[in-house]
Amino acid sequence: MAKVVKSELTRQTLKLRRLGIDTYRENVAYLHRDCEVYKAEGFQALSKVKVCADGERILAVLNVVDDDRIVTPSDLGLSEEAFANLGLDEGQIVSIEHAEPAESMNAVRRKIAGERLNQQDFHRIIGDITERRFSKTEISAFLVASGQSDMDRDEIYFLTRAMLEVGERLNWNESLVADKHCIGGIPGNRTSMLVVPIIAAHGMLIPKTSSRAITSPAGTADTMEVLANVELNIRKLHDIVRRHRACLSWGGNARLSPADDIMIAVERPLGIDSLGQMVASILSKKLSAGSTHLLIDIPVGPTAKVRQMRQAQRLRKLFEYVADQLSIHLEVVITDGRQPIGYGIGPVLEARDVMQVLQISPDAPEDLRQKSLQLAGRVLEFDPDVRGGKGYAIARDILDSGRALDMMNTIITAQGIQTRQFEAGKLVHEECSTEDGVVINIDNFQMARIARFAGAPMDKGAGVDLFKKLGDQVSKGEPLYRIHAEYPADFNFALELCERDNGYLIGNENQIPSAFVEF
Amino acid sequence: MAKVVKSELTRQTLKLRRLGIDTYRENVAYLHRDCEVYKAEGFQALSKVKVCADGERILAVLNVVDDDRIVTPSDLGLSEEAFANLGLDEGQIVSIEHAEPAESMNAVRRKIAGERLNQQDFHRIIGDITERRFSKTEISAFLVASGQSDMDRDEIYFLTRAMLEVGERLNWNESLVADKHCIGGIPGNRTSMLVVPIIAAHGMLIPKTSSRAITSPAGTADTMEVLANVELNIRKLHDIVRRHRACLSWGGNARLSPADDIMIAVERPLGIDSLGQMVASILSKKLSAGSTHLLIDIPVGPTAKVRQMRQAQRLRKLFEYVADQLSIHLEVVITDGRQPIGYGIGPVLEARDVMQVLQISPDAPEDLRQKSLQLAGRVLEFDPDVRGGKGYAIARDILDSGRALDMMNTIITAQGIQTRQFEAGKLVHEECSTEDGVVINIDNFQMARIARFAGAPMDKGAGVDLFKKLGDQVSKGEPLYRIHAEYPADFNFALELCERDNGYLIGNENQIPSAFVEF
Repeated sequence: MAKVVKSELTRQTLKLRRLGIDTYRENVAYLHRDCEVYKAEGFQALSKVKVCADGERILAVLNVVDDDRIVTPSDLGLSEEAFANLGLDEGQIVSIEHAEPAESMNAVRRKIAGERLNQQDFHRIIGDITERRFSKTEISAFLVASGQSDMDRDEIYFLTRAMLEVGERLNWNESLVADKHCIGGIPGNRTSMLVVPIIAAHGMLIPKTSSRAITSPAGTADTMEVLANVELNIRKLHDIVRRHRACLSWGGNARLSPADDIMIAVERPLGIDSLGQMVASILSKKLSAGSTHLLIDIPVGPTAKVRQMRQAQRLRKLFEYVADQLSIHLEVVITDGRQPIGYGIGPVLEARDVMQVLQISPDAPEDLRQKSLQLAGRVLEFDPDVRGGKGYAIARDILDSGRALDMMNTIITAQGIQTRQFEAGKLVHEECSTEDGVVINIDNFQMARIARFAGAPMDKGAGVDLFKKLGDQVSKGEPLYRIHAEYPADFNFALELCERDNGYLIGNENQIPSAFVEF
Repeated sequence: MAKVVKSELTRQTLKLRRLGIDTYRENVAYLHRDCEVYKAEGFQALSKVKVCADGERILAVLNVVDDDRIVTPSDLGLSEEAFANLGLDEGQIVSIEHAEPAESMNAVRRKIAGERLNQQDFHRIIGDITERRFSKTEISAFLVASGQSDMDRDEIYFLTRAMLEVGERLNWNESLVADKHCIGGIPGNRTSMLVVPIIAAHGMLIPKTSSRAITSPAGTADTMEVLANVELNIRKLHDIVRRHRACLSWGGNARLSPADDIMIAVERPLGIDSLGQMVASILSKKLSAGSTHLLIDIPVGPTAKVRQMRQAQRLRKLFEYVADQLSIHLEVVITDGRQPIGYGIGPVLEARDVMQVLQISPDAPEDLRQKSLQLAGRVLEFDPDVRGGKGYAIARDILDSGRALDMMNTIITAQGIQTRQFEAGKLVHEECSTEDGVVINIDNFQMARIARFAGAPMDKGAGVDLFKKLGDQVSKGEPLYRIHAEYPADFNFALELCERDNGYLIGNENQIPSAFVEF
């Protein structure tokens, strides 16, 4: 009987409509409340639906619309991301179906209940996340369930492997492909833009792909973009690396560890950067980019991601364990994370600092120069021909001889010089000290927020330019830093934030917290 | 210097626009990408913003729009829920600000790290959730972090108290205010609509407020609505209860435990009904409704929420512990949850079953009658004048004498008879057995899904009508149940689901799982 009835019915179809709504890495479908296919309560708001047409299908979260101007009862609207993922034209006929809850949510529920998951569980979860079968709330549930205390080191290895295996993987066909990565959290920490030209000038392969900022005021890709095109397709990227041994490119086009991009978009706003997730995220990205030798920088300080040496050591062991399982040569350095690195925070200001170091300018920030040389030295020592302990001197020679600057210019030219001229934002405010004394604390987190509120990284010229660093003498009324913004609204937001807490503490020399460093 | 600059700037203002988009218990704000105030990267998609005007303010998640038909660069669009929460007219001038991340997310992060939270932590978290300072992903993080294994019984008590204290609380000024509640998961389990008239006919106060279905095919409110108006305001509800000792109303108007409504909207679709959250949710709702004596029904069966007696006992202890702390008299009964109760699943079909029991019809489902009498008997024994063990007989006398039916009609009249005539859906399919044997399993979860796919509870006549129950003999080709739908699209969905798995197992008498009951 079912057969007869079913054959008489045709599946309700809808006209595809692209809605210019950016829902940030979550597919959203919009259906009119009077649309017949919606009237099943099964389709309630926030249900997951499958949108199908022409052999393509995507999963999306459903929003119900009462306004014909947005969608009519015969339309199916899609958010920008969803429309791009489906990859069809407006007006095409699509149908929608109930999307089954992702099978692997059962494994997530087992994890919530405290079970240890195996390799297959992680494979299925990461597969479903990549296929967008998880909603953001489900991803959040997975991230929390697998957070901090709840994943042992084998589970972290399973997760890393699963993330690695769902994406593309670059193969450079060389035995030594170097990379360096900082776990983040320190504004102005643009060492990659110095390490990469130094390493490449030495002749080692270092194809650096980096991210744009998600919750920070600038990523390496945002800052490099002040100088050069960073959106390279895979072929161009390969060409440049083959010819010049290096690149400084945005990694988003390469579909390297795609699950990582999706999870980070949920994780960062939640502020739950668990150690296990961090290890899996970084190693899956680096391995998929084809690295064989990796230097990890863990800054430690009172306002850094890692606040205690004990925690840094634990993180180091996790990195080492998983890297060994995956046969990547990995070393960890623990660095001074008590304050921002360099002077500038925000793409234009950070690019200025980098270029001053490369140009051996007397205005160049010494801390950025020193840290970059030390990191570069360690990377150079991955080269079997470099004697242990000699890396730093080689790096310094390459930098001071101008070869690093030449290499940077080569990379910029190869990627394409930035045609737009970016400048520091014209709206400025100088934040001044209200007392005499010594700078005893600079809050990394607060300085990053002020720079973000001022418009960084979207407005490249926005940010903060530091005049005083830890241990510097200041007098009452003397400027501590300058805020740059391009738009009045942003400027206002940044000033308000700065007024509540300007991020600086002034006191006595002996109140400066001591640095934890293990190079 | 900051002062001068700031006074020259005026905060960017926007025109309020109501967008007919239902985002289901999450406030969403829509801002055009060309809107100046958006251009701070601080405002990136999925940022949280504060919308302010006229002394009112709400928090919302931001979606960025590229389509002038939805919002222009001078508009601020709000989703239906957000617009209602702000409570202003379209066209009013509003401003937006960065919303601070909720302070209490720090406590959530401590919980994720495995810490035990105190009363104040739970107060802050629940306060922030109620004020909508948490996004859905943040709520999901809290639910998972405080799930199953991660809350001790004192924390469950703290959570319950916090949820209780953010909402309104009804006060009936009587020493015995009875209620009963089932933890859910069993389709057709509409005992409240029988227990309430029996108890009220006895003279006990039983002001029953219940929910609409979220992920089930019918809630008590959905089913009662087939017969009567259930959307009573607080005054009307009080009037009816004063006069008739009872009501069967939807609880959503009363702002009882509002945090619960918000959390359930995230929790149910995730399918992570942890014991601690369940206890806090139920007890906060019941206490805020003014109950002093509460009977909890925990059905146990292979496809029920609670699958093992061990788990049911653990849940019982948690209920008892928290109820004792909060000074509510609570008793728990553990019932047979191996299959749906009654014949009908879906509002119209379930209302039919209820009325047949009240009318002592020969067609009435005996299991629904027996379970309701047993529950009513236990509630009657809350009355100090009812001798232990005599409740069942009193309940049966009230039902069989027609006094329960009279009381039901009184309640229906008082709430307002339903003017619309609902009928079982006209599109029908009879699902037949493919073999001879005995029904040895009926999957509660699958039967509920089939009913939901058919359109329940939104289409009141949609659902499933069972002809065979556990232990019944069936022959090959004999109908097991009938699916009812009102719309072809839903009908189709339900048939497809049924074809994949019709929810029934046929076998031998001795394969029927045994019941766990503790009355």
